[in-house]
Amino acid sequence: MSKGINQTAKILGEHRIIQIIQNHLTPMANTPVPFGDDVSAVSLDQKTVAVLKTDMLVGKTDVPKEMSLYQAARKAIVMNISDFASKGVQPTAALVALGLPANFTQKDVEEIAEGLNSGAQEYGAYIIGGDTGEASDLVVSVSLFGTAQKSALMLRSGAKVGDVVALTGAFGKPAAGLRLLLGGCDAEAGLRKALLESVFLPKARLAEGLALRDCGAVSASIDSSDGLAWSMHELACLSNVGFMLDKVPIAGDVTRFAQSNGLDALELALYGGEEYELVVTVKPEGWAAAKAAVETVGGQLLPIGKATKARELVLDVCDEKRAIEARGWEHFKSQG
Amino acid sequence: MSKGINQTAKILGEHRIIQIIQNHLTPMANTPVPFGDDVSAVSLDQKTVAVLKTDMLVGKTDVPKEMSLYQAARKAIVMNISDFASKGVQPTAALVALGLPANFTQKDVEEIAEGLNSGAQEYGAYIIGGDTGEASDLVVSVSLFGTAQKSALMLRSGAKVGDVVALTGAFGKPAAGLRLLLGGCDAEAGLRKALLESVFLPKARLAEGLALRDCGAVSASIDSSDGLAWSMHELACLSNVGFMLDKVPIAGDVTRFAQSNGLDALELALYGGEEYELVVTVKPEGWAAAKAAVETVGGQLLPIGKATKARELVLDVCDEKRAIEARGWEHFKSQG
Repeated sequence: MSKGINQTAKILGEHRIIQIIQNHLTPMANTPVPFGDDVSAVSLDQKTVAVLKTDMLVGKTDVPKEMSLYQAARKAIVMNISDFASKGVQPTAALVALGLPANFTQKDVEEIAEGLNSGAQEYGAYIIGGDTGEASDLVVSVSLFGTAQKSALMLRSGAKVGDVVALTGAFGKPAAGLRLLLGGCDAEAGLRKALLESVFLPKARLAEGLALRDCGAVSASIDSSDGLAWSMHELACLSNVGFMLDKVPIAGDVTRFAQSNGLDALELALYGGEEYELVVTVKPEGWAAAKAAVETVGGQLLPIGKATKARELVLDVCDEKRAIEARGWEHFKSQG
Repeated sequence: MSKGINQTAKILGEHRIIQIIQNHLTPMANTPVPFGDDVSAVSLDQKTVAVLKTDMLVGKTDVPKEMSLYQAARKAIVMNISDFASKGVQPTAALVALGLPANFTQKDVEEIAEGLNSGAQEYGAYIIGGDTGEASDLVVSVSLFGTAQKSALMLRSGAKVGDVVALTGAFGKPAAGLRLLLGGCDAEAGLRKALLESVFLPKARLAEGLALRDCGAVSASIDSSDGLAWSMHELACLSNVGFMLDKVPIAGDVTRFAQSNGLDALELALYGGEEYELVVTVKPEGWAAAKAAVETVGGQLLPIGKATKARELVLDVCDEKRAIEARGWEHFKSQG
């Protein structure tokens, strides 16, 4: 038996594990969305597709001890909705498979149910079914369903040289919040509250995603739950382009937090995970319309650079160029 | 705080937990399948529905230590397909959220992927996406998708007085197999192999379910994963009828196993869980067509009694009547 086959999940990491699994699956013909994009899909007719997503939250690795069960359950829904947002798809219904430790109480169950319902209702979706059983650890496995016009789906591939790279918001708050939770960092009460809230009560950019879909100017899109740098590498790789960035918008609070704790704010913004902004590329001729569409729903669209022929990711600020590395949050590897 | 709210999941049990959760959910209007049926559904247009199901397998409670990872992964798929079978719906695509202990090896991951793919391919479905992360225990959360004609769905409600109650096969093998695994029982090698195989390699009655749907004579249907007695109580309760049974088909092997181990074969057949036969009611005028339809696909349809006005479940064999209790496999309660 080769050494490789005995490597543990911890060494392999999430991305390699997904690749191993995919290698053993019989591919379905003519799926409208390639394996590995933010969502999966099945054709319903020539124009319409059923959009599906599943993402699992596990207590041990995904829920800091300061997070309430309400927040954990809500987050399990929101992280799935964020993937729908990035494709420009309205979620209709969710199913939840729930693994509960045997000592959880009725009050715990009620709190989880309220969190699930809030998460779905905030984004116009309903929980219509599920399953529950005993588990060693809290497990909230959500599957989400919606329908979409095939031609309107915003995939990870599709960015063209010259397209504008843009974000629906500034980055770094969740990474700063997670540093606070890990200990060794400080922040005054107001700042602490704001940073922790970004971890405990994340928002999916669904209104922004739907507005971007409707404007028709987006060439590629991804959510940023594995971090900004990783998401941009995915977009670049699947679109066969590079990106030259002239800025990385860092949330104001994060710069302040980084300064007072001797941390690099840019590092937090680029390589922290658990972010829920959308990272998109927009055709130059549609830029004004895209920006206006997002602003109409109360959001913002921040241009940060251009797609380039050179297949590299570079941040060029004040003529100082630095490469953006292909790293970010990865299950198994990023923990412990 | 009331005492009730501090009761643990172990005391509440699966059914009460599901009820508590449901009480906290905003119901979706006009769903084509009521909450709590074997599957969930969303209307796509006036005639067509999207059918959805999620069911989670957890290593600690659902996987005997003698079961391979290939078998566990395959079973996670098959138990979801069984629910589709009971509604007469062909599954199209599955998504899998996988929780893996960090010490699982590449070989383990490959075995799981092969089990997932086999389970799906045996029933004409494809795995088109998923998610993986670290968990304390193996978690295989499957979500299944398909489409169906709304009018053809075989729901749990719908049985009418006089309808024939029927099963797609004899019962008791998995219950006997589980007794073998728990220890204290014996069986000669050939019998042992057959009983364990019913636990390790369950079959979903998809061909039978689709044939029953096509014959149009089924008034109500449920799968039997929580046991025959429990499934019949569910059917009776949701259809506002009772059932008078004149037999319970017990697998031949099980009678032999029970005799040699001093067990009650009927108890194993009625109250054991992990069964994957379909329990259906058939309109009397359609009985011949339903039986022929199932036999055409290589299956069998065994009549066991009639639906009655009296809302009770009675087994009447040789003029000796006994009540069938509303018990069966229930997560949290049935364990430990």
